[in-house]
Amino acid sequence: MEQVLERAHAQRLDGADPLASFRDRVVIADPDLIYLDGNSLGRLPTSTGERLRAVVAGEWGAALVGSWKDWIELPSRVGDVIGEHLLGALPGEVVVSDSTTVNLYKLAAAALDARPDRRVIVTDDDNFPTDRYVLDGLAAARGLEIRTVTADPTHGPSLADIAGALDTDVALVSFSHVAYRSGALLDLAAVTAAAHEVGALTLWDLSHAAGSVPVALNSAGADLAVGCTYKYLSGGPGAPAFLYVRRDLQAQLRQPIWGWFGQRNQFAMGEHYDPEPDVRSTLTGTPAVLGLAAVDEGARLLADAGIDRLRAKGMALTSLLCELTDAWLAPLGFTVVSPRDPALRGSHLTLHHEQAWAICRALAAEAAVVGDYREPDRLRLGPAPLYTRFVDVWDAADRLRRLIAAGGHLPYAGPRTRVT
Amino acid sequence: MEQVLERAHAQRLDGADPLASFRDRVVIADPDLIYLDGNSLGRLPTSTGERLRAVVAGEWGAALVGSWKDWIELPSRVGDVIGEHLLGALPGEVVVSDSTTVNLYKLAAAALDARPDRRVIVTDDDNFPTDRYVLDGLAAARGLEIRTVTADPTHGPSLADIAGALDTDVALVSFSHVAYRSGALLDLAAVTAAAHEVGALTLWDLSHAAGSVPVALNSAGADLAVGCTYKYLSGGPGAPAFLYVRRDLQAQLRQPIWGWFGQRNQFAMGEHYDPEPDVRSTLTGTPAVLGLAAVDEGARLLADAGIDRLRAKGMALTSLLCELTDAWLAPLGFTVVSPRDPALRGSHLTLHHEQAWAICRALAAEAAVVGDYREPDRLRLGPAPLYTRFVDVWDAADRLRRLIAAGGHLPYAGPRTRVT
Repeated sequence: MEQVLERAHAQRLDGADPLASFRDRVVIADPDLIYLDGNSLGRLPTSTGERLRAVVAGEWGAALVGSWKDWIELPSRVGDVIGEHLLGALPGEVVVSDSTTVNLYKLAAAALDARPDRRVIVTDDDNFPTDRYVLDGLAAARGLEIRTVTADPTHGPSLADIAGALDTDVALVSFSHVAYRSGALLDLAAVTAAAHEVGALTLWDLSHAAGSVPVALNSAGADLAVGCTYKYLSGGPGAPAFLYVRRDLQAQLRQPIWGWFGQRNQFAMGEHYDPEPDVRSTLTGTPAVLGLAAVDEGARLLADAGIDRLRAKGMALTSLLCELTDAWLAPLGFTVVSPRDPALRGSHLTLHHEQAWAICRALAAEAAVVGDYREPDRLRLGPAPLYTRFVDVWDAADRLRRLIAAGGHLPYAGPRTRVT
Repeated sequence: MEQVLERAHAQRLDGADPLASFRDRVVIADPDLIYLDGNSLGRLPTSTGERLRAVVAGEWGAALVGSWKDWIELPSRVGDVIGEHLLGALPGEVVVSDSTTVNLYKLAAAALDARPDRRVIVTDDDNFPTDRYVLDGLAAARGLEIRTVTADPTHGPSLADIAGALDTDVALVSFSHVAYRSGALLDLAAVTAAAHEVGALTLWDLSHAAGSVPVALNSAGADLAVGCTYKYLSGGPGAPAFLYVRRDLQAQLRQPIWGWFGQRNQFAMGEHYDPEPDVRSTLTGTPAVLGLAAVDEGARLLADAGIDRLRAKGMALTSLLCELTDAWLAPLGFTVVSPRDPALRGSHLTLHHEQAWAICRALAAEAAVVGDYREPDRLRLGPAPLYTRFVDVWDAADRLRRLIAAGGHLPYAGPRTRVT
């Protein structure tokens, strides 16, 4: 244990890290800044600037409308990269399109339409806000019931509670695979199996899972999934999101936003909507080409790193942070409110502290450590495994303990020393 | 008339063009290429590459998640530029968000929910496919009737036919202000007034109107509108679309995709959806920052040019093309199938020819003139007024007549001379 508290230990872990070289493949503009918010907005891959210059100057500026012959395939092509390398999906099961919110809406509505005699949607009270709001909106429009499982603040919803909420009146079961606040990892295969036992469809939000944990959508028999590309996938702010529809469901389900990019033989501009017989029926309007190109770069970078190596490093990083928290931060009022077993959490760790908000602000302003605050009293630290070093975790914990010891999070009371 | 047929006449018009200098503010990679497809994908503004570099390297790469304090306002800030300068809207009536298709869905659904006792949607059979499909999907889901006005292929739907389709069972009236095929301009104020007389709401598609004709949404009392930013607005391929909700309707209407970016006090992550009391309630997921930045550049460029000058030049460009068509192309089998009165069309001109498809392909491949083909027999030529010269129109018509005369659109039958 004492060894863990030495910076040399973290340095040794970095020396043995098979992903160490990937830090050179993202932009580190300020070497002093410790960025533990890659689970909110992933760092910029070094290749992305070049790719975007080529898309903007070459494909748009010079080749103009002729570039659509390539662009039109981007939603499927980028979707397949994500699907194969990060989600355990088959080719043709994933596309990149719209936002996570809009994708949740499309797929949840499609699922509800496929179970017209059932009246219940099951989710949990700590699911991400946009998930809860989208489901609420659909339930309100259709007079359905939301059956809300109470999530444990640290461990998320329990399998027993979820099983207890399931019956043959349930149309749709929708959870996050990795919880956005606690980082708790929910057993995707077990929940999917339980949902299928009562004949319900599953819709997974993989926003905090994609690129941080191996997801096995197809082998788990998961029905539907969505997720965001600007976190671990480093697709850039507001990059288009992905969605997954299991192959054998694609011809059965129909999503509600009937757009021309979902139309078979689109440029015939036929009189009536006649959707593609595959996952492309979930496409709606003209795809966001700049965003798609950036997602492509990010997803390929993750694919090169390999999800198993990313997962192993993510567990080791958060485990180091957990140990340092116990040793240094617990006496200062911090509690780990993520699962302590790394196999039961994603790649971020959440700490409770009564003054979490002030600490989060001071940590960025005075100690150059960027995490994020989550209501009402949590500091969320996400050491994205692609580019975060073990010494970054050690330094962040060290800066944090020194900040608190110096009262850096308290209202200003005279000059004090920066802790970086 | 003879004077029109001289290239010197076009040169004189260019010499007197108050917008001539704007050609230097877009990228012209190939000076020989005549691009008459800016109504499909507008040219790249010279400032956009630089802006995107700043957003990518500076705001994302260096400032990371801290940039959200600015990005979060982009949907409204860019929306207001478009609203004020191009749409005749008040501040706070326009946002940029999602795609045109998704925006159509959101606003049409909101309008139908606001008229729950009415069963009819009115549109026309030549409306853009995604508009027809979205409305069809909503009608199918709700058991409503689509009452389809037959559009004249050249002049679009008539006011008399539209009036004849209106009664107190109509919930929503939805047309394109400028028709995508013929370019016909529909009287927005008259249709809005007629719709209001029976208590219906109006939803306008401004995709081919924004940046080509002055739109007077607010003074016409228009209720709702959407439109695309990658045509005349030069926002780039798949750039996010705009939407407009008249101010006094904003608190009444509720769109169906309840997302966290529409939530009041979003980062409190409250238990229930409590939308912003204004146009921001139409926002859904995380905004596409790269696309928004590019739209901002394009919209500001159009604003600098001024919509009245753009409109005047657009009419003059299409009028020159119309005259050259009559003189040179009519004998070769072409017919103008856009309104001949420039006040009754937008900024593109559509020609009918039995071999339109082969001609469109050959025109690009052998004569370096890019227009586009529209089913079943139309060549659509859009001389975007921001950067198209009168000599471009003259040269395009000249190349086209020489192409046809040389049989360049016919199956290959031995060597022939390029006409550029």
